[in-house]
Amino acid sequence: MHGLTQHDIWALLLSLGILLTFARVLGEFAQRFGQPAVLGEILAGVLLGPTLLGTVLPEVHAFLFPLEGPRGAVMEGLSSLAITLFLLVVGMEVNLSTVWRQGKTVLYVGFGGMLVPFVLSFAAAWWLPGLLGSGESDATLLVFALFFATAMTISAVPIISKTLMDLGLYRTDLGMIVIAGGIFNDLAGWILFAVILGMTGVQSGLGLAVGHTIGLTLGFVVFMLTIGRRIVHAVFPWVQAHFTWPGGVLGLVLALSLLSAAFTEAIGVHAALGAFLMGVIIGDSSHLRAHTRKVLSDFISFLFVPLFFAMIGLHINFLANFNLVLVLAVFIVACIGKLLGAGIGARAGGMTRRQSWAVGFAMNARGPIEVILATLALDNGIIGEQMFEALVLMAVATSVMPGPIMRHLLERKRPLKATDFLSAKTFVPSLQAGSRLEAIQELAAAAADVAGLSPAALEAAVWRREQVMATSIGDGVAVPHARIDGVDRPVVAVGISPKGLDFDAPDGNPVHLVFMIATPAQDNGAQLEILADIAHTCMRPAFVERATALAGYIEFLALLRTSDGEASR
Amino acid sequence: MHGLTQHDIWALLLSLGILLTFARVLGEFAQRFGQPAVLGEILAGVLLGPTLLGTVLPEVHAFLFPLEGPRGAVMEGLSSLAITLFLLVVGMEVNLSTVWRQGKTVLYVGFGGMLVPFVLSFAAAWWLPGLLGSGESDATLLVFALFFATAMTISAVPIISKTLMDLGLYRTDLGMIVIAGGIFNDLAGWILFAVILGMTGVQSGLGLAVGHTIGLTLGFVVFMLTIGRRIVHAVFPWVQAHFTWPGGVLGLVLALSLLSAAFTEAIGVHAALGAFLMGVIIGDSSHLRAHTRKVLSDFISFLFVPLFFAMIGLHINFLANFNLVLVLAVFIVACIGKLLGAGIGARAGGMTRRQSWAVGFAMNARGPIEVILATLALDNGIIGEQMFEALVLMAVATSVMPGPIMRHLLERKRPLKATDFLSAKTFVPSLQAGSRLEAIQELAAAAADVAGLSPAALEAAVWRREQVMATSIGDGVAVPHARIDGVDRPVVAVGISPKGLDFDAPDGNPVHLVFMIATPAQDNGAQLEILADIAHTCMRPAFVERATALAGYIEFLALLRTSDGEASR
Repeated sequence: MHGLTQHDIWALLLSLGILLTFARVLGEFAQRFGQPAVLGEILAGVLLGPTLLGTVLPEVHAFLFPLEGPRGAVMEGLSSLAITLFLLVVGMEVNLSTVWRQGKTVLYVGFGGMLVPFVLSFAAAWWLPGLLGSGESDATLLVFALFFATAMTISAVPIISKTLMDLGLYRTDLGMIVIAGGIFNDLAGWILFAVILGMTGVQSGLGLAVGHTIGLTLGFVVFMLTIGRRIVHAVFPWVQAHFTWPGGVLGLVLALSLLSAAFTEAIGVHAALGAFLMGVIIGDSSHLRAHTRKVLSDFISFLFVPLFFAMIGLHINFLANFNLVLVLAVFIVACIGKLLGAGIGARAGGMTRRQSWAVGFAMNARGPIEVILATLALDNGIIGEQMFEALVLMAVATSVMPGPIMRHLLERKRPLKATDFLSAKTFVPSLQAGSRLEAIQELAAAAADVAGLSPAALEAAVWRREQVMATSIGDGVAVPHARIDGVDRPVVAVGISPKGLDFDAPDGNPVHLVFMIATPAQDNGAQLEILADIAHTCMRPAFVERATALAGYIEFLALLRTSDGEASR
Repeated sequence: MHGLTQHDIWALLLSLGILLTFARVLGEFAQRFGQPAVLGEILAGVLLGPTLLGTVLPEVHAFLFPLEGPRGAVMEGLSSLAITLFLLVVGMEVNLSTVWRQGKTVLYVGFGGMLVPFVLSFAAAWWLPGLLGSGESDATLLVFALFFATAMTISAVPIISKTLMDLGLYRTDLGMIVIAGGIFNDLAGWILFAVILGMTGVQSGLGLAVGHTIGLTLGFVVFMLTIGRRIVHAVFPWVQAHFTWPGGVLGLVLALSLLSAAFTEAIGVHAALGAFLMGVIIGDSSHLRAHTRKVLSDFISFLFVPLFFAMIGLHINFLANFNLVLVLAVFIVACIGKLLGAGIGARAGGMTRRQSWAVGFAMNARGPIEVILATLALDNGIIGEQMFEALVLMAVATSVMPGPIMRHLLERKRPLKATDFLSAKTFVPSLQAGSRLEAIQELAAAAADVAGLSPAALEAAVWRREQVMATSIGDGVAVPHARIDGVDRPVVAVGISPKGLDFDAPDGNPVHLVFMIATPAQDNGAQLEILADIAHTCMRPAFVERATALAGYIEFLALLRTSDGEASR
C-alpha cells in the first residue's frame, strides 16, 4: 500500500476499463468484417496509444497510460501475466497426437521456417549493413547481423494461435503443424538470442552462461514432456478427489503454470514457453474436465488476451522515427524469408500449394514476441531506434496479414446459422394463428418482402412442403420450410405462438415456436445447415418456455445466441 | 516494457505462483477442519509475510515480496484489481428482492451496527486517550477520536461475504441482512473518513470537497439502482444478441465494473463500492446467463480472491511494534460496539437470539477494508504505528472469528454426501459377482470392518431390504441399502461390475455401478441424503461408462467430486 496512491488506483481501473472496452468493441468489429478479433484488439492500442490519442490529446494519454512510474509497472506486470495465462490456454488446446502424427511435416516446416529466414537475413545484414541501418547501433556488425537474423527467425506463437482460433483452424492438422513449427522457431530464436546477449556480455534472467541456458531449456522441455507430464497426470485426479471442486483444480493449474513460466523466464528464455509447456501437459490429461477448460479459456481469452494485445500498441508511436526505406527493407526480408522457408517446408511435407502458402503466412506473424525481443535489443544497444520501430511495424503488419489471407486461401466457411438470416422484420412476437396454415400465412406475410416474393407464392411453396410431411421437430418447435425459385439468399422468419399450435408433432406437444425457412432452389446445403442449427439451439430443456416469455426481438436474438451456455445451468 | 526487468518478471511470476499455492492449500486445510477458506488464505500471507518468512529468512522474503519498487507496485495493482473483481462477484450474488423484503431488519442492523460502535468508541478515545495511544499521532484529539470511531464503525463486506459463502449462508435471509447492513456501515464509514480527511486538509481521489464526495456518493448509489439499472438491463440483451458469445457479455461485465469502480474510487469512497453496485445490477438482470455467472465467479473466487486475502498478511509483521494493552483495548472496544449494536438491531428486527449473535459476529469482521483505512490514516499522520498494528490485528482477528462462531450458533450442517463415507477400503474396482446377491455379498465383505459388523449380518440386512423392492435407480446404477442397529455412522461401499448385473432395473439396463449404503437404525435423514446425492451425481449421460473405464479409487473419487462440471460438456 505504499507505491500506489488512491489517485493511481482509480486512474488504473479507469484505464483498464477503457482499454478493455475499446479492445473488445474493435475486436467485435473486426470479426463482423470477417477479420480475426486480434486485429481490432491491436488497433485499440494504436488508437489509445501515442500514435493517435497521444498525438491528439497528449495530456489525456499521459494520464491514462503513463509509461513510467508505478502505474506503468502495473500495466507491464499485467501484460506479463496476461501472456503467461494466454500461453497456458494455447498450450491446453494443443493436440499432441496430431503433432506426432504430422511429425515429418512439422520438422520440415520448423526447419525451413528457421533456416531460410536466418541465412537470408544474416546475408542481407552482412552485405547491406547501410540499408538495414546497422550504423545506428553500438554493436559489432557480427552481433548486429546475428541479432537481425534471429529477429527474422522468430515466430509469434500467441498471435498465430489467436488467428487460428479466430478462424476455427486451431485444432486442425494445419493448425497443429503451424503451432508446432512456430514453437520450434521460437525456441530456436530465444536460444539464439541468449547466445547473442552472451556475446555482448549482457546477462539475462538468472545471469546464466549461454551454454547453461541452452542446456537447461532443452532439459526442461524433455523433462516436462516425460516425467513432468507423468507427475501432473498423477496429481490431477488426486487434487480433484481431495480438494474442493472446481477451486482445487483451478488453483492447481494456475499455480503450476505460474511456476513453470517463472522457471523458463529465469533461465533466460521467455515465460511464455513455460506456461505453454505446462498447458500442453495439462490439456493432454484425460482428467481435465470440460468445465475447468471452459472457465480458464473463457475468462483468459476474453479478458486478459484483449488487454494484452491492446497493450502492444500502447507505448509505441508508429509515426515518429519513421524510416520508410528501413521499414520496407525489414518487412520484405522478413516476409520473403518466412514465406519461402516455411512454405517450402510445408510443400516438402506433402501439403497442397494453398495450404503451404497459408502455413507460410501464419509462420510469418511476429507479433508481441518480436516486440519483446526488439525492446531487449534496444535496451542493450544492439539496435537503434529506427530499427526498433521498423521491427515493431513489421511485427504488427505480419500479425495482421495472416487472418484475411488464410481465410481467402483456405476458403474458410462456417456453417450457416438461423441468426444469420433472421431480422426484426421477420420476427412475429405473437402469432394470432389458430392452425398450421394460418401460422404459415402470417410468417409468409412477414417474410415476403425480404424474400422478394409475394406472400401468396411463399405461403404456397411452404404449405405444399408441409402437406407432404409435418415439420414439427418436437419440444414445441416446428420448422416449415421450402426451397423456392427466385429466392436469392436464405430467409428465416420466426413466430411465437403463446397459445400453442397443433403441428402434428411426433411427441404430441403443441408448438409454440415456428421457424419458417425459405432457401434458394439450387442450394441444398443452406436448408440443412439452418435446420441443424435450429434443432441444436432450440431442442433444450425449457428453451421454448423461455422464448415465449421474452419481450421482443433483441431478447429473442440474445436467447438464440447464448443458448450454448445454458446447458451448464 | 521499461519499468520491469526480465529479473522482475520471473520473480513476479514465481512469487504469484508460490502465493497462490499456499493460499489455495491452506484454504483447503481450513475447510477440511470446518473453517472458512479465507482463514487459511490470510494465514498463507502471514506465513509468507514479514511475520514468519521475513523473520526466519529475510533475504528470501525481500526477494519474493518486495514492498517497494516496480514489483511492489504490481502486487498492489493486482490487489486492487482483485478486490474490485471480487466485489463484482459479491454484488452479482446479492438477491435484491430478499433485501427489500427484509427492509426493516436491514435498517435496524445497519443503524445499530453504525451508531453503537461509533458513539462507544468516540467516547473511549475522547475520555481514555492515553489508553488508546492518541499520543502517537500528530492529529488533534478530535480528529483522532473521530477516526477511531469511524474505524470501529466500518464493516468488511468482502470478508463477510466470503465467510457467508464458505458457510453456504450467502443467499439466505440472514446472509442478505448482514450484507445489506454491512454495505450501509461501509458506506457511512467511507463518507465519515472523507469528512475526517477534509478536517485534516488532506484531499483524496479527485480532490473533491467533503460535501461533494457525500453528494456524489449518494447520487451515484441512487443513479445506479434506478437509471443505471435500466440502462444495463437494456444493453445486456443487445450485447448478447450482437456480440460473440460469451466474449461479448464477459467483456461488458468486466469493463462496466472497472469503470464503475474507477468512479467511486475517484470521488473518494472505495473502488469496491462501485464494483459491488455494478455487480448487484448485473446479477439482478434476468438476461444474465448461468454460464457467464459461473465463469466469472469460478475464476475470480479461486484465483484473484485467494491472492487478495493472502496479500493482506504479506506486508505486515504481526510481532513487531506489538503493544499488548493497545491491541486488547482496540479489540475489546471493536467487539463490544459491533456485537451490541448489530446484535440489538437484529433482535429488534425480529431475529432469534442465536441469529442476532450471528449477525453481530458477522458485522464485526473488519478485514481488508480496515487495513486500507488504517494505511491511509497512518500515511496522513492521523494514527501512529502501534495503533496501526492494533487496528490490523483487530481486523484479522475479527475476520477469523465469524466462521467458526456462526457455524456453531446456526448449527450449519450440510447435507451428507456419499464421498464423506467412501474410502479406498470399501471400493471394489471389479466385482466378480454374477447376480445381485453375490454383488451384495462382495460389498458386505469389503464394508464389514468399517461398519463394525460381521459380513454376514451386513449382507443379511441389505439383502432383506433388497428383496422388498429392487434398488436399481436406472442408468446402470443400483443402491442396495439398509438401516442397521449397531452401525454408528454411515458406511458406503462401491463396486464396479464390468460385465453388468441384472438388478431388475426399471429401465431394463444392466447395472455397472453398485453403491451399498448402511446407516444407523435411528438416523432417518442420513440414508435419504446419501441416496439423493448418489442419484444427483451418477444419473448423468455417460457417467457409468466413464466410471467403468477408470483405473482406481482416486480416479473414481475425482469423478464423483467433479461430476457437477460435466453437465456443461
